[in-house]
Amino acid sequence: MMARRSQNGADRATSRPVTVSVDAMGGDAGPAPIVAGMAWSAQKNPDIRFLVFGNGAQLEKLVDKRKALAGRCEVRHADGVVTMDSKPSHAMRHGKGTSMWEAIDAVRAGDAQVCVSCGNTGALMAMSMVRLRKIPGINRPAIACLWPSRNPGGFNVMLDAGADIRADAEDLLQYALMGSSYARVGLGLERPRIGLLNVGTEEHKGRAELKLAHDMIEAASQHAPFDFIGYVEGGDLPSDRVDVIVTDGFTGNVALKTGEGTAKLIRELLKQAFNYSPLSRIAALLAVTSLQRLRKRIDPRRVNGGVFLGLNGLVIKSHGSADATGVSAAIKLAFELGQVDFPARVAARVASLSAPVQGAETDSGQVYGTPK
Amino acid sequence: MMARRSQNGADRATSRPVTVSVDAMGGDAGPAPIVAGMAWSAQKNPDIRFLVFGNGAQLEKLVDKRKALAGRCEVRHADGVVTMDSKPSHAMRHGKGTSMWEAIDAVRAGDAQVCVSCGNTGALMAMSMVRLRKIPGINRPAIACLWPSRNPGGFNVMLDAGADIRADAEDLLQYALMGSSYARVGLGLERPRIGLLNVGTEEHKGRAELKLAHDMIEAASQHAPFDFIGYVEGGDLPSDRVDVIVTDGFTGNVALKTGEGTAKLIRELLKQAFNYSPLSRIAALLAVTSLQRLRKRIDPRRVNGGVFLGLNGLVIKSHGSADATGVSAAIKLAFELGQVDFPARVAARVASLSAPVQGAETDSGQVYGTPK
Repeated sequence: MMARRSQNGADRATSRPVTVSVDAMGGDAGPAPIVAGMAWSAQKNPDIRFLVFGNGAQLEKLVDKRKALAGRCEVRHADGVVTMDSKPSHAMRHGKGTSMWEAIDAVRAGDAQVCVSCGNTGALMAMSMVRLRKIPGINRPAIACLWPSRNPGGFNVMLDAGADIRADAEDLLQYALMGSSYARVGLGLERPRIGLLNVGTEEHKGRAELKLAHDMIEAASQHAPFDFIGYVEGGDLPSDRVDVIVTDGFTGNVALKTGEGTAKLIRELLKQAFNYSPLSRIAALLAVTSLQRLRKRIDPRRVNGGVFLGLNGLVIKSHGSADATGVSAAIKLAFELGQVDFPARVAARVASLSAPVQGAETDSGQVYGTPK
Repeated sequence: MMARRSQNGADRATSRPVTVSVDAMGGDAGPAPIVAGMAWSAQKNPDIRFLVFGNGAQLEKLVDKRKALAGRCEVRHADGVVTMDSKPSHAMRHGKGTSMWEAIDAVRAGDAQVCVSCGNTGALMAMSMVRLRKIPGINRPAIACLWPSRNPGGFNVMLDAGADIRADAEDLLQYALMGSSYARVGLGLERPRIGLLNVGTEEHKGRAELKLAHDMIEAASQHAPFDFIGYVEGGDLPSDRVDVIVTDGFTGNVALKTGEGTAKLIRELLKQAFNYSPLSRIAALLAVTSLQRLRKRIDPRRVNGGVFLGLNGLVIKSHGSADATGVSAAIKLAFELGQVDFPARVAARVASLSAPVQGAETDSGQVYGTPK
């Protein structure tokens, strides 16, 4: 994640309070790590407020224990819980009254600027679409995620990470526009470089809808504040030749989980390698800060937070297994995007497709400052 | 890669000489690393012979320098070279006389049991299909690759890694059958566990053709020597709950390159972390054997070799950038599979679909021995 210019409200001209609505019941380990993550964020950021939804008695108890949350967190009781194995369509039809539903509705009602949930991704997206509605002109919303990379800021953006398993050429063009807005606002890049994920960089390879999307994004880039670099491959996801990687939600989800799975395997093997012999255990002791430096760089908790793009309201999906560090990272992202009314910027960018020149600078606001 | 029971021909009841035809001109660095890899393999394995295709004068010079190749390697001159940016369709129509074409034709003519090339994947597959033809009953051939995993043998199999960007349910079923044969012969697994790659493990998720393929593979598994474990996700590629992961060539190629790209990024970051300070450089010195142990485990050169499944003849694609170690790994794989007439086993397995019970044991031969 990037460093903001300063954590001190007085130094930040643009700073304004942001209320985050939190679905506290969706995570794998219940509400405790979620409230811990909230407290952590509150401690670091005086401009943040919370509305937290779930079992009232349980939440009051957890919140009362956290000094940092005193006077800055309102508990709202919600009876139901959307489980990890709920069908999205069922959750959408019968989800009213669940903590997830109510957390989303707080954004709809204007009580909060952004919603964070660790729950079932499919259900969260289905409910968000029903309650917040899609931005005019958007066919399929997308989930954008951060990807550790060789770029100076340390991250690339990939979308769709799994909102919808289908995407036609028109959808991929919209992902390019929305992803470029996210990279401008979220990563502070003036002209993000957009790449379209394919199996080869030669133009004759790939599926028909990709060829069409290639030409549409190229045409749109003539009047938009991004550069289209054409096709990229799986190996380019962490590269420094691209900032935003556009793909359908099936491929994006497989890529995301493959990357996470590979990193996890290597972490385990690294641990085994250093546990192999007494000498290697001594080496590990000496190498401990080097290894911690590496671990921090590829820690999946630091890139926690899938941003739902294309809705009239901001929803962020946190990993179901996120601990306090992970939840806090998702809340930080929520705060940054909540400060600048991000959905309005995306809407302006998408609308600019029909009036490209006038709309060219609509999303130029930058949230993050210099990369650390 | 697995250890064979013994490298000594006398100890191995099943050992018989294998001639490998090598396209020496396709690699990124020309024929030198390829001939070096051949020499390395020849040195370790007395049962291996080579037919090598490319620029005759250049190859004679390189081969003459290698004692291990004396009397065991025939150079055959071929004028043309298929370049990395050749269109597969063009290479297929105009490729006659290239080193790639002639190397494949040596398998067709029975002069060699298996062909290895570092060249353009698309062209190699297109030419292989034209010259060797598909096995009766196979609609789309596939490329199977090894994937570092937590399984005792150290590897899983994934297919299709990029032979064809499309795959319908019938194709995915055939991939399951061919992948199971490969795992039985190549990894020595009696009942490989097959998984179908999807975005979620719940049965209501995913594309329509995946649901159909799920049911077809499940039905086929009733009479076949493999277990179908249902859907798996990207994070399961390195897991020990599955042996063979089935997917279309687009998704498989993105996953493969994403995994490789992630591993490469982590290797770079690890290096940076240990170069950070004088103390961390000392730590690196002490940790050198631990780190080498890790490097060896995830070294992409050791898993080099995409096996083309579904053709009347064996072709193995080596990485374009493979060095002598990588080429030698691909040749080792070629030798192992060449020993058992692998294409005939796959053909029998595919034919068994119409007569499942009789065909159930056709591919039970094991090439690799105990995992090291």
